[in-house]
Amino acid sequence: MDLREALYTTRSMRRLKPDPVPLDVQARILDAARFAPSGRNMQNWHFILVDDPQIAKVLGPIYREQIGAVLDSTYAEAARAAANDPDSPESRALERLFRSVRHQALHWESIPLFLFAYAPEGNTGSSIFPAIWSAMLAARAEGVGSTLTTVLNPRKDVDRLLGVPEDEGWVQVACVPMGYPTGRFGVPERKPLASVAGRNSWSGPLGFDASEPLWPGDEL
Amino acid sequence: MDLREALYTTRSMRRLKPDPVPLDVQARILDAARFAPSGRNMQNWHFILVDDPQIAKVLGPIYREQIGAVLDSTYAEAARAAANDPDSPESRALERLFRSVRHQALHWESIPLFLFAYAPEGNTGSSIFPAIWSAMLAARAEGVGSTLTTVLNPRKDVDRLLGVPEDEGWVQVACVPMGYPTGRFGVPERKPLASVAGRNSWSGPLGFDASEPLWPGDEL
Repeated sequence: MDLREALYTTRSMRRLKPDPVPLDVQARILDAARFAPSGRNMQNWHFILVDDPQIAKVLGPIYREQIGAVLDSTYAEAARAAANDPDSPESRALERLFRSVRHQALHWESIPLFLFAYAPEGNTGSSIFPAIWSAMLAARAEGVGSTLTTVLNPRKDVDRLLGVPEDEGWVQVACVPMGYPTGRFGVPERKPLASVAGRNSWSGPLGFDASEPLWPGDEL
Repeated sequence: MDLREALYTTRSMRRLKPDPVPLDVQARILDAARFAPSGRNMQNWHFILVDDPQIAKVLGPIYREQIGAVLDSTYAEAARAAANDPDSPESRALERLFRSVRHQALHWESIPLFLFAYAPEGNTGSSIFPAIWSAMLAARAEGVGSTLTTVLNPRKDVDRLLGVPEDEGWVQVACVPMGYPTGRFGVPERKPLASVAGRNSWSGPLGFDASEPLWPGDEL
């Protein structure tokens, strides 16, 4: 797969088929992760692939408990704002996101593969999220969809379930559910570049117009 | 460029030519960043491209001050360990890394392009480092080398220099120097997969052998 196609179309895929992800595909996904950069090339990371349905069964209720708390707090305010103007593009996007998150939570037990990532306590994310994103991009090339979730991070019971050493200072930084999607990959909605970037100062004019995605095609 | 080639060969490139990076190339690098995922698709990020040599001139001494402190503290212990066994592969790798970091620090003023990334205070990195890594991968496809540095993060004088709003809670999370490299891109050294990953538990057997990179070729 072309790099730019992957960078533009690896959107969150939460509706996944229960079909297993073959071992050689898992290997290519996981192997790509370790070639990402890390501070001083320390590679202070640890990954766990989970494809045991018995573990997924235990994770399901835990995930729903965690995402419930998130939906109750973080999402609630946004949802109220959306309810005031239910037909705005923002409200419709949020509603789609809610439905998709809810679907994934309710079908957690049938997700065929999870990639858990651990990093040292106190990490800033700079030496682990590039590796996780590499795995997600490599998955995209295999037709495997994924979502980056941090909702299970605080759950020490999950760490115990996965046999994470308790005295070495590792913390969970992400759980990435993976599987073949029911829908199609596509370019997601994003803010225009000019609203999130500047040249030589915070809001200095960029010198190019990029309100539309520069893929496919690279016309400015 | 093929996705897997990019994932395996986007190693840190610190020896850069002063040649400018054309505007259309910059646009493709920056545009790729915004299609990375972020929590709730909030896109709470801000990027600044810096190609003004006057700014690079101010940044040079600041970077050298910061990296000096890092070299003095963090690197010192590793360097001492290396000095005890100077011919080990680890010692030689560390020495190469030191030389390369030192080279970049001494030539900071002639770096043609920087990508600064900002995120909300208290962020865990999950919603910003995928975007930064996307930019670095997109740069790779253009033949542009880069390094992810977090050394300037604490420097509020840099934020002021770049006109970062002071009362909106933004923090610098990375500065990525970019330019055409003098050397060649290649697959970097990494630990064998089995030492940093497990299946269904921390050190559960992966079920495949991946001590060698699974690229080029995807034989297991």
